[in-house]
Amino acid sequence: MKLCMIGSRGHCGYVFESIADVPELSLAAVSPGCGDDPSRLLAMAEKAGFRPELHQDWRTMLDKVKPDVVCIDGPFDRHAEMCVEALRRKIHVFCEKPIALTLEDLDRIMEAHKNSSVRIVSMVGLRYDPAFYQAANMVHAGAIGKVKLIRAQKSYKLGSRPDFYKKRETYGGTIPWVGSHAIDWILHFTRDTFRSVTAIQTVEDNHGHGDLEVAALCQFVTRSGILASASIDYLRPAAAPSHGDDRVRAAGTEGVIEVANGKIVLIDANGERVITPDAPDRKLFSDFILELAGGRPALVSDEETFELTRSCLLAREAADTGKQILF
Amino acid sequence: MKLCMIGSRGHCGYVFESIADVPELSLAAVSPGCGDDPSRLLAMAEKAGFRPELHQDWRTMLDKVKPDVVCIDGPFDRHAEMCVEALRRKIHVFCEKPIALTLEDLDRIMEAHKNSSVRIVSMVGLRYDPAFYQAANMVHAGAIGKVKLIRAQKSYKLGSRPDFYKKRETYGGTIPWVGSHAIDWILHFTRDTFRSVTAIQTVEDNHGHGDLEVAALCQFVTRSGILASASIDYLRPAAAPSHGDDRVRAAGTEGVIEVANGKIVLIDANGERVITPDAPDRKLFSDFILELAGGRPALVSDEETFELTRSCLLAREAADTGKQILF
Repeated sequence: MKLCMIGSRGHCGYVFESIADVPELSLAAVSPGCGDDPSRLLAMAEKAGFRPELHQDWRTMLDKVKPDVVCIDGPFDRHAEMCVEALRRKIHVFCEKPIALTLEDLDRIMEAHKNSSVRIVSMVGLRYDPAFYQAANMVHAGAIGKVKLIRAQKSYKLGSRPDFYKKRETYGGTIPWVGSHAIDWILHFTRDTFRSVTAIQTVEDNHGHGDLEVAALCQFVTRSGILASASIDYLRPAAAPSHGDDRVRAAGTEGVIEVANGKIVLIDANGERVITPDAPDRKLFSDFILELAGGRPALVSDEETFELTRSCLLAREAADTGKQILF
Repeated sequence: MKLCMIGSRGHCGYVFESIADVPELSLAAVSPGCGDDPSRLLAMAEKAGFRPELHQDWRTMLDKVKPDVVCIDGPFDRHAEMCVEALRRKIHVFCEKPIALTLEDLDRIMEAHKNSSVRIVSMVGLRYDPAFYQAANMVHAGAIGKVKLIRAQKSYKLGSRPDFYKKRETYGGTIPWVGSHAIDWILHFTRDTFRSVTAIQTVEDNHGHGDLEVAALCQFVTRSGILASASIDYLRPAAAPSHGDDRVRAAGTEGVIEVANGKIVLIDANGERVITPDAPDRKLFSDFILELAGGRPALVSDEETFELTRSCLLAREAADTGKQILF
């Protein structure tokens, strides 16, 4: 199997985290995507033992190399176009999230996907984080009964970000970019989809980051009636002990489970206990490739990829308009 | 100064927690309020060293004893009526929260208060809890800069509750009853008031508790633009190590502060540290009485008492109607 990679603006590092687990896959070629500097991508490839061809034009690369899989991590506002082009060529897609910055672009991707008979997943790598992965499995196994209420938190350090973060057109917004992880946990933990959302956000005090929202809150009701919220901020102080403060708290009819600081806390009929998670039996990228190679189904389906993207964009619309959005 | 007490359905225990700190106050008389059993109230009084008169009729008690202060803790749906009657008699009011179950009743109280020249506060005792009290003081002193995002959590064990919890008319709803604490922390920490609210709630899986909502989420924007949310549930398992799991997380331009498990965690330019709170220099009831006796202003003003009640009732209305409510 042949892999191509386009761009390195986001989390294409996921490829190199587990590509060694899928020796049947070789990195044939890379393209910086839209004039970006290719050196970071080439350095990562070399470190992983690959000497890929370098193509300035990503379309030419896809046509000449004819890969089985493409990793898309170019400019955020070009994800959708790149996904569409790959799907039309029947190339499996591993794309930075969100895969589209507008609902129209998402529709274009879904249309291109419809008859492609290939797979598409976005980089929801935090679903594979040990504590979140194990906690979700516990919820699916009934550890807290029926889920009633779930909250997810993403809190990041802002630092100083490249200019493309400062414009809505090139960034997409904090709810899709940072919030997508929180929203993905909610969808994954509950195995449900949303019925409605209201959301609020603020760009004030963003330290010169233009359109970038420094904080947002989203409030969802799922189709089965679960209450859910996502808290998203760039307010984590620079001196905090880690870049991100990722959390989930799910309360059900039989217990409460929480993930924070890499640990799981479960309270059920047997009282409260702290659980140190095991290493997961999957990693984001190799999980996807192993399915393509005929192995077990990956954790993330095409439908979940689309649903997450749609959920993020509708939550952003709720925040932009101040109106409740029905799904 | 003379105190009367009406009823003991809620947290009138706050009186006895600190009445010894105000020796100028004597408990002159009690009334069970509306036919309730007076024995709990009498036992608490006796334990505190008082032998109050017992009046079946609370109005007669107010007229005959002419107290300076009355503690109102009768049926939830009678708080407003009792407040109005006390205010009309120019008696200071220490009332279980929420002081009214409808906006109309709140208006009646505010009208009666207008020319009364007496004080009214509700039992927002958790504002005086050591960790919350100290954390709020730290926020007021600038520990996290300008507050941008604040979340508060109340999670309780449901257990088996008296019948009056099972009807909206006599209970008032979970957002006003349990959520009032979370909403009060938000108002107190931010020293702000609300501009808008959306809210969601659910009565499903409430173990035969009728109208009682087992979970709710409220999302507020304050007048200055702070994003706020309150998470409220009765989903804490019976085997959990404590009755309630109370929390606040406030993120500002200069830091993040959290209260949970009775501790404060602060992250600022100096990194992260855990702070064990000191004993507060105030207690809810004596703080109020000491102000009446000419001492320093109590922590809670009449206006805050009204604003909290209104905020709870409008959040409930948002949840009941599924609409955003503007304040």
